[in-house]
Amino acid sequence: MMNRVPEPIDVGVLGATGTVGSLLVRLLDGHPWFRLREVGASPASAGLALGERTPADSMGPLSAEASRLVLKALDDEWSSPLLLSALPSSAARHTEALLAERGHLVVSNASAYRQDPVVPLIIPEVNPDHLRLLEAQADRWPGGIVTNPNCVTAGLATALAPLHRAFGLETVVATSMQAISGAGRPGPAAGELTDNVIPFIANEEDKIAEESQKILGHRNPDRIVHGDFVVSAHANRVPVLHGHLVAVSASFRNVAGPEDVEAAFTSFEPPEEARGLPTAPERPIELIPGDARPQPRLDRDRGQGMVVTVGRVRECPALHVRFMVLAHNLIRGAAGAALLNAELCHAAGVTTRVPAR
Amino acid sequence: MMNRVPEPIDVGVLGATGTVGSLLVRLLDGHPWFRLREVGASPASAGLALGERTPADSMGPLSAEASRLVLKALDDEWSSPLLLSALPSSAARHTEALLAERGHLVVSNASAYRQDPVVPLIIPEVNPDHLRLLEAQADRWPGGIVTNPNCVTAGLATALAPLHRAFGLETVVATSMQAISGAGRPGPAAGELTDNVIPFIANEEDKIAEESQKILGHRNPDRIVHGDFVVSAHANRVPVLHGHLVAVSASFRNVAGPEDVEAAFTSFEPPEEARGLPTAPERPIELIPGDARPQPRLDRDRGQGMVVTVGRVRECPALHVRFMVLAHNLIRGAAGAALLNAELCHAAGVTTRVPAR
Amino acid sequence: MMNRVPEPIDVGVLGATGTVGSLLVRLLDGHPWFRLREVGASPASAGLALGERTPADSMGPLSAEASRLVLKALDDEWSSPLLLSALPSSAARHTEALLAERGHLVVSNASAYRQDPVVPLIIPEVNPDHLRLLEAQADRWPGGIVTNPNCVTAGLATALAPLHRAFGLETVVATSMQAISGAGRPGPAAGELTDNVIPFIANEEDKIAEESQKILGHRNPDRIVHGDFVVSAHANRVPVLHGHLVAVSASFRNVAGPEDVEAAFTSFEPPEEARGLPTAPERPIELIPGDARPQPRLDRDRGQGMVVTVGRVRECPALHVRFMVLAHNLIRGAAGAALLNAELCHAAGVTTRVPAR
Amino acid sequence: MMNRVPEPIDVGVLGATGTVGSLLVRLLDGHPWFRLREVGASPASAGLALGERTPADSMGPLSAEASRLVLKALDDEWSSPLLLSALPSSAARHTEALLAERGHLVVSNASAYRQDPVVPLIIPEVNPDHLRLLEAQADRWPGGIVTNPNCVTAGLATALAPLHRAFGLETVVATSMQAISGAGRPGPAAGELTDNVIPFIANEEDKIAEESQKILGHRNPDRIVHGDFVVSAHANRVPVLHGHLVAVSASFRNVAGPEDVEAAFTSFEPPEEARGLPTAPERPIELIPGDARPQPRLDRDRGQGMVVTVGRVRECPALHVRFMVLAHNLIRGAAGAALLNAELCHAAGVTTRVPAR
Repeated sequence: MMNRVPEPIDVGVLGATGTVGSLLVRLLDGHPWFRLREVGASPASAGLALGERTPADSMGPLSAEASRLVLKALDDEWSSPLLLSALPSSAARHTEALLAERGHLVVSNASAYRQDPVVPLIIPEVNPDHLRLLEAQADRWPGGIVTNPNCVTAGLATALAPLHRAFGLETVVATSMQAISGAGRPGPAAGELTDNVIPFIANEEDKIAEESQKILGHRNPDRIVHGDFVVSAHANRVPVLHGHLVAVSASFRNVAGPEDVEAAFTSFEPPEEARGLPTAPERPIELIPGDARPQPRLDRDRGQGMVVTVGRVRECPALHVRFMVLAHNLIRGAAGAALLNAELCHAAGVTTRVPAR
Repeated sequence: MMNRVPEPIDVGVLGATGTVGSLLVRLLDGHPWFRLREVGASPASAGLALGERTPADSMGPLSAEASRLVLKALDDEWSSPLLLSALPSSAARHTEALLAERGHLVVSNASAYRQDPVVPLIIPEVNPDHLRLLEAQADRWPGGIVTNPNCVTAGLATALAPLHRAFGLETVVATSMQAISGAGRPGPAAGELTDNVIPFIANEEDKIAEESQKILGHRNPDRIVHGDFVVSAHANRVPVLHGHLVAVSASFRNVAGPEDVEAAFTSFEPPEEARGLPTAPERPIELIPGDARPQPRLDRDRGQGMVVTVGRVRECPALHVRFMVLAHNLIRGAAGAALLNAELCHAAGVTTRVPAR
Repeated sequence: MMNRVPEPIDVGVLGATGTVGSLLVRLLDGHPWFRLREVGASPASAGLALGERTPADSMGPLSAEASRLVLKALDDEWSSPLLLSALPSSAARHTEALLAERGHLVVSNASAYRQDPVVPLIIPEVNPDHLRLLEAQADRWPGGIVTNPNCVTAGLATALAPLHRAFGLETVVATSMQAISGAGRPGPAAGELTDNVIPFIANEEDKIAEESQKILGHRNPDRIVHGDFVVSAHANRVPVLHGHLVAVSASFRNVAGPEDVEAAFTSFEPPEEARGLPTAPERPIELIPGDARPQPRLDRDRGQGMVVTVGRVRECPALHVRFMVLAHNLIRGAAGAALLNAELCHAAGVTTRVPAR
Repeated sequence: MMNRVPEPIDVGVLGATGTVGSLLVRLLDGHPWFRLREVGASPASAGLALGERTPADSMGPLSAEASRLVLKALDDEWSSPLLLSALPSSAARHTEALLAERGHLVVSNASAYRQDPVVPLIIPEVNPDHLRLLEAQADRWPGGIVTNPNCVTAGLATALAPLHRAFGLETVVATSMQAISGAGRPGPAAGELTDNVIPFIANEEDKIAEESQKILGHRNPDRIVHGDFVVSAHANRVPVLHGHLVAVSASFRNVAGPEDVEAAFTSFEPPEEARGLPTAPERPIELIPGDARPQPRLDRDRGQGMVVTVGRVRECPALHVRFMVLAHNLIRGAAGAALLNAELCHAAGVTTRVPAR
């Protein structure tokens, strides 16, 4: 299915001035398959150079070429067949459909279409076959829309995947301690979050449950049968810059203990389609030894932020097993997730099908 | 059983220079029932004035009288019938038994004797009748030992008490986000906990489970039958100064929904024995309205730190109900808990039984 | 000049929903001289109850009476002779003049009129005689405007006052490390200030210099001759919730060493007019012993946040003496400062002169 | 004087398990001139593998080769001619002299010998000619000792160097806001530094003054005449992980304004000897535009942590000019500084003179 070295193509980034968008721009710098040619943002920024509208942050400066790209309005004409979307959901609903209608393949980090029955919600190492849903989109749009999960689900569903496959998930209780950067800009005020935890993130708990069920569901054949397990999520914001940490209790249809779970983590191999993608880490899941790991600051950057780390696997008195999961929310949970999906699409030849002018 | 205005008595504080001990000293300043007469610490401090050995912290200065108290060694002779212990567990095992042997009533925050079958583990608003276990100690010590739970259990078991009574607890999954001050001095280094969460606290998860089961167990008649429910705890350290926040999922023998649980919280009345104790808050549990509450910095100081706040009560897809619990770890979870237990004992006349010279 | 127990009067608070305004509302609860009768905010809030528009914060809840006050628009008719203003400067310029024109005495925390030659800029313990400038306002407004300094100057100028009096200030280099709450709401984002310092606060450095010179200037007789010394300020924002800490190097016309400076601090007595005001601390300046003090979290709350703490007085190789100054930016530096000025005015009989209602 | 591509040599690291030492080990991984062959630590660690004794931190894991190196005791026999020392000062005084006596060139980050008249205190871009002091050591030790400045001086003296050269420094007032990692392990407790600033760092203020004067002094010919200017330092610890930020006011013998100072910064060229060293950044000083820069989190990593960033250059009402200086305390201020000095020595042929082995 996959050509290892596909032809490079032009790409654009929608929402290029936000936290996720400007990280996408950086990740595209020097990308072997994609040439960043177009960037777009809200009308207020259109016509300005990207460099002028990218706030200083600790990701470091943009490349000179990227800095000079002139921001388009979202509903301008775009020439790139592949558009990566880091739009807020409100803007995404209209814009992404419009651009799919015009024939672009939109690979999106936004939540707007994640639960649409014909839109694939993909983690390449977990459910790359869901990409076939695109065929069901043919009636709707000449182009298409492919999505990645929200920032917690990205790590959680990756960690749950080998367990679901091996033991059959039944019940998951997942309490997240989510980083500041997951809230976008400006995000929570320092006056709110210093010496504090905020035990609420709007809509997050439902997303974590429903997206996990869709990703770990099976294709049959042109729709997704959601996974038949329950997820109870508790979402909290903690004073951490990057890295969403999740405390998980899980039970399975086939009883499994800590050793079984550890073995499932360490033996996990991504499917053929996900291997060799430029942004894919060597191993998507790493089990960190030690009593007190993973920790956001120590472990979030593994594999350039694309590795999902797990640890503290131990028995659960209530369900079967307890463990911790950590993923870099901006990379594995957002910009890197979208880019990896774009790579999956390009390797699968989906991007060339697109009739964009 | 209770004399509302008992005779004031002399008390001592063991471990008076640590975080919990020096808070006890402050809470005893102007106490209507207790006169602080003696303070003790490790041999290195013995003979020095308490004021010289109390580190500056944000609790404010000691009273002049307390500052001038001379620190005794732990195995010195003590004259006060009632001794409040804020010792580390290692020191507590030997010292508390020694002093109970010498006829003192030791009301302890240490974990050493919490699971001893003849030692009551008490939250006055929850299980004051467990104090009757003291009778079973008569064979062992002329004095006695009474304990309070660890800093997470103090809040959690208080919140669970009305639910257990009303619906019968079956399963609890509790993920804590614990404050720095719970780790004592020096506690975690700033270099470890800044921009980070540490997903491990030694021995904490077992304590949370076992202490909850003992506190919510029933007396029959001179031993405690532990509560027949399971608790799965996930303990995490977060960058918060004070206030342990816990995300809870719970199921019950008699199915209960969010409204039932809210009603149980708001109608909770402490038993007769706990009412009117000087350190008891008007209501031990307060349900905070709003999507994102309780929060450590906003809610930990309610009722001078003695109120357990709960909030975000909502359905749980996995068990029955999800909610948040918060308690000030140093006050409701340690120094205030011990003091309240001492008040319970004194009101019950237990302190006068003690033969101390 | 001062009646110790003046008649209580009605007061209003302008800008009652912001950080400083809602603190003012709390400080007025149970005030012996002032009855809070009116509150005002921007048009968007007018007509709503104050309780509905006051965000939850760690200051604790409003009183029930204050919660029920209905917010007026700023240019509504006000009946209280004395209005305390916590307006942002932009709104203050127009509104405060309008209300002074209508006969109210406006005691303001805003910067709009601080440098107006006929408007007194007062710290009651430092320059209460500047209140006489009000006489020069008679031509302009039937009411009047009295201001307090910005949040850094409030502490710095108080600490410098005894030194200027004793030795004659020549040069001051003052580097501030300012708390988050000084930036109002929402203030800096957690994503900007976590693990960071922001070395810039708009307009702050000039205010610190010019306000110090006006406050420490002398009245001659109906204008202020600014202090003849230079202040070089470096303003920085640090991850601290409350309490502005300032590192000071100073030189004097009459050479002075660390002992002289310490003696000036400890012997400082506020003038007669400032003594006995309800919000005045017993001693406005406290010298904290120890190598590493004052510290924001340990010392900002002294005297209910109205004490300016100083410490680390030592020789300066460049100027004469180095030391640290700390003040609670929201209390001594804002709400408490305005309230203390209102008390000074009321004790001086200025409020009764006002023809309002 | 310099061979651009000198022969690679073996090196050892003293104090390899501490914060600075373990960073040195990482920086030596793949170094073009130096092969890490030996590591040493306190007796408690001797005989263990380095990997077992290196705490997890956010620098990432050691290389497999480095992990396997067996720790020597400090007074063991060492075979490498060049030893990089990250010892605490207490251990450094004895050990460094012992090893210099045995013929090693010890390039040290410790403060023990920085003010010794025959020991060069070097920043390669500033005073590489001070290396000639080594000749004066010949009488004392067959080997030698070369030191780098403390973590604040490393950045400050680099920034001051072009100003001293161009205008002649007269007076410097420097207020530091220093990062947590500068305090080593364990460093300040989270309970002390959360929501706080600690205005004291033992011995730091004198070091900043005296080391700046030595580094910016001139060689004449075999001793250093210290710079004839005064430095008044105020040292503060702030809740920042890495990066020491300094607010500077400075005056000069030849009056200079902000434009002059900016021009001196931007035109600064390191001397011939420092160019092309593997660890040297292209430009040692970068002027960051913008009102609010440099900031620790945004700018500390420039040039792999070896660039000293400056910004906010503006007039000073008290002295001549005000500006900010930032340097990564662990890299430019410690491990990178020592490594750069080692490279300077090796390029100058000093290491081959050493008779070791």
